[in-house]
Amino acid sequence: MTVTIDSDRLWNRHMELARFGATAGGGVWRLALDGSDLEAHRALADIALGLGFKLFLDDVGNLFIRREGLDPLLPPVVSGSHCDSQPNGGRFDGIFGVLAALEALQSIQQSGVQTRHPLECVVWNNEEGSRFAPGCMGSAVYSGVMSLEQALATIGDDGVPLRDCVRALRELLPEAEHRPLGTPFAALIEAHIEQGPELEEGGITLGVVTGMQGNLRLMVDVTGREDHSGTTPRRRRKDAFFSAVTIVQALREALHDEKDVLRFTVGRFSISPNAWSVVPGRASFAIDLRHPDQAELERCHAIVIETVARHAAPCEATVTQKSSAIPVSFEGPVRDAIQRAAQLRQISHRSIYSGAGHDSRYFPGLCPTGMLFIPCKDGISHNEAEYASPSDIAAGAQIVADVMLELAS
Amino acid sequence: MTVTIDSDRLWNRHMELARFGATAGGGVWRLALDGSDLEAHRALADIALGLGFKLFLDDVGNLFIRREGLDPLLPPVVSGSHCDSQPNGGRFDGIFGVLAALEALQSIQQSGVQTRHPLECVVWNNEEGSRFAPGCMGSAVYSGVMSLEQALATIGDDGVPLRDCVRALRELLPEAEHRPLGTPFAALIEAHIEQGPELEEGGITLGVVTGMQGNLRLMVDVTGREDHSGTTPRRRRKDAFFSAVTIVQALREALHDEKDVLRFTVGRFSISPNAWSVVPGRASFAIDLRHPDQAELERCHAIVIETVARHAAPCEATVTQKSSAIPVSFEGPVRDAIQRAAQLRQISHRSIYSGAGHDSRYFPGLCPTGMLFIPCKDGISHNEAEYASPSDIAAGAQIVADVMLELAS
Repeated sequence: MTVTIDSDRLWNRHMELARFGATAGGGVWRLALDGSDLEAHRALADIALGLGFKLFLDDVGNLFIRREGLDPLLPPVVSGSHCDSQPNGGRFDGIFGVLAALEALQSIQQSGVQTRHPLECVVWNNEEGSRFAPGCMGSAVYSGVMSLEQALATIGDDGVPLRDCVRALRELLPEAEHRPLGTPFAALIEAHIEQGPELEEGGITLGVVTGMQGNLRLMVDVTGREDHSGTTPRRRRKDAFFSAVTIVQALREALHDEKDVLRFTVGRFSISPNAWSVVPGRASFAIDLRHPDQAELERCHAIVIETVARHAAPCEATVTQKSSAIPVSFEGPVRDAIQRAAQLRQISHRSIYSGAGHDSRYFPGLCPTGMLFIPCKDGISHNEAEYASPSDIAAGAQIVADVMLELAS
Repeated sequence: MTVTIDSDRLWNRHMELARFGATAGGGVWRLALDGSDLEAHRALADIALGLGFKLFLDDVGNLFIRREGLDPLLPPVVSGSHCDSQPNGGRFDGIFGVLAALEALQSIQQSGVQTRHPLECVVWNNEEGSRFAPGCMGSAVYSGVMSLEQALATIGDDGVPLRDCVRALRELLPEAEHRPLGTPFAALIEAHIEQGPELEEGGITLGVVTGMQGNLRLMVDVTGREDHSGTTPRRRRKDAFFSAVTIVQALREALHDEKDVLRFTVGRFSISPNAWSVVPGRASFAIDLRHPDQAELERCHAIVIETVARHAAPCEATVTQKSSAIPVSFEGPVRDAIQRAAQLRQISHRSIYSGAGHDSRYFPGLCPTGMLFIPCKDGISHNEAEYASPSDIAAGAQIVADVMLELAS
């Protein structure tokens, strides 16, 4: 019992969805529940309703599209990802996983095949965390890692609380029934672009994800003193920017990993008052650390604290932990089913470790969980130039359909 | 023939004006022609009209408060400064020079003394340049250094062109007559807080300004590539932020001046897209260089260009000159009159060189020009903690009144 997905329909749907928040440079700027993201949700809902599927929305803004099973009381087999993007992000990150799952549901529906378990496509809210920090918020609340109250109280970069945006989403989707947080899944499979170069470099179509590296996020705040830039001699200055630069250079040395496994990024940086004639009195920056080994992340955390303390003078500096996610490994029936399906379909595949964090990170302890990757051009993601080919997209979605069918039967 | 200024009235007026744009931290946030700055202009106009003075406004938004002379056809003796502030600026920078001049006009008016030349208090528009860059814009246009068209077309940080703000100012001050740009002055004297530590450290009340250092402003733009921070190995990154940090560290070494005469400041810095999970694709920062010797500034300019080129890899970087002001020296009748008045009043004084740039920089070639400084606490300026004492403020204003009287007789 197999179904074949429609690769043209799937590609066209990617191009349609890329219109919501489209940038002049060919990418997408669609931050969690902003105007474009709300439009994307509505477009997905319209497709789903047109196919006769039901909609469910939970209290943190996760959307579920459900094809009923023979036994509606069984937990659903779920697949999906997210539809928000980074600022100046790409057309495939997140939305590919959603559209692959929706295509699986649609092709199964149109084939007439009945499954014992219900099938669901999930659209996790706020995976990127670029409007509301931290990311993977919808999945974190659903899985119980973060409290609903904390999530809803989060204030966006634009000053709007997530609570108001979730309310707007609920009003936008009056057809959606209420889904209690934490409602169990029979299994979870997430498809995603690799966001790295390995599959493309190896000429491989499918990555069977074995695990996901841990992620530690720290904020460094440097406090000096504002002074007039024309009159204040160097010896009297407490220049928060120069201290921050010294700290960053020291961190680059102290965190240098010859093997290039550790990912160390300063993605956010600001100074105050940010004026030509004023010695900066404050500087703040974000440190994003990722590694497959939790012990290594803890060692890096200690290095950051020590390095910041040693190099802040003549200013003062603090280190604040913003979030921490331990490394996870994917083992068991979903990963095995992905592997089996790829073999049956004769799609080239290999095991791969995930450098990026994804919503599925919270589920291995709750239900059988797995992920698959497809290549993306030059390994580039979080960038307008992000690209995945129609054939790779089709291959990934076919495996999602095959695995969902197998697990739901 | 002397007049005595009213020090209590002058202090109280400083405190009144500090209400426009007052910050919670005791400072002032009053950017050129923003709502608070417009209110401050209106308050100054109301005081002037109440005293029977006339108002004049020129096409770039400079305000003149005029006490008529016995011979209205003679050019006016002018004193003043500016009433805009830096973001989170202080209560004395700029406004002291305006209120000292206004106090001089008022006490001369109330003493009944007649002067041959008209006396004027000038409020230069946009000295700070923190909303509309560059600063000293009103005086630059008045003196012919910058074209009116270029100034009016300048777009503020908030997206509003200066042209609209000048129109708003004109509507706010319907009593003001039109003043043609470049109308000659008999002499110009500007009082200002020192914005440095020297007078306070020496226990001196008055600085007779001998000159002003030159100022070179450069913008560095670094272009790398946005990438996913979790998946992209270091060897594949083009991190614009890390390249900018490397450049800044190299500049600090290359521009290190053991004598601590050169002022090197990076006051503005930004990265894009400024997101936790994205390797920065762009970084931009502002370099402010000041030195009494123009040849030294030119040498520094060459060093910046060379250092940026050498340390930008693996990114690319450009250097753009935003403005340049050569060093000036104050000599002649105004400086002599300041010195004489301080001697007669037995106010402790010394010669001092100006580290900051001021509107008077453009006038030594046009009319006799001079400046005086009073101490400010701990040398701190462009900061909410900026402070000048009532007695120093009174001493400075008294000298302004004495010098204006002498030069206008």
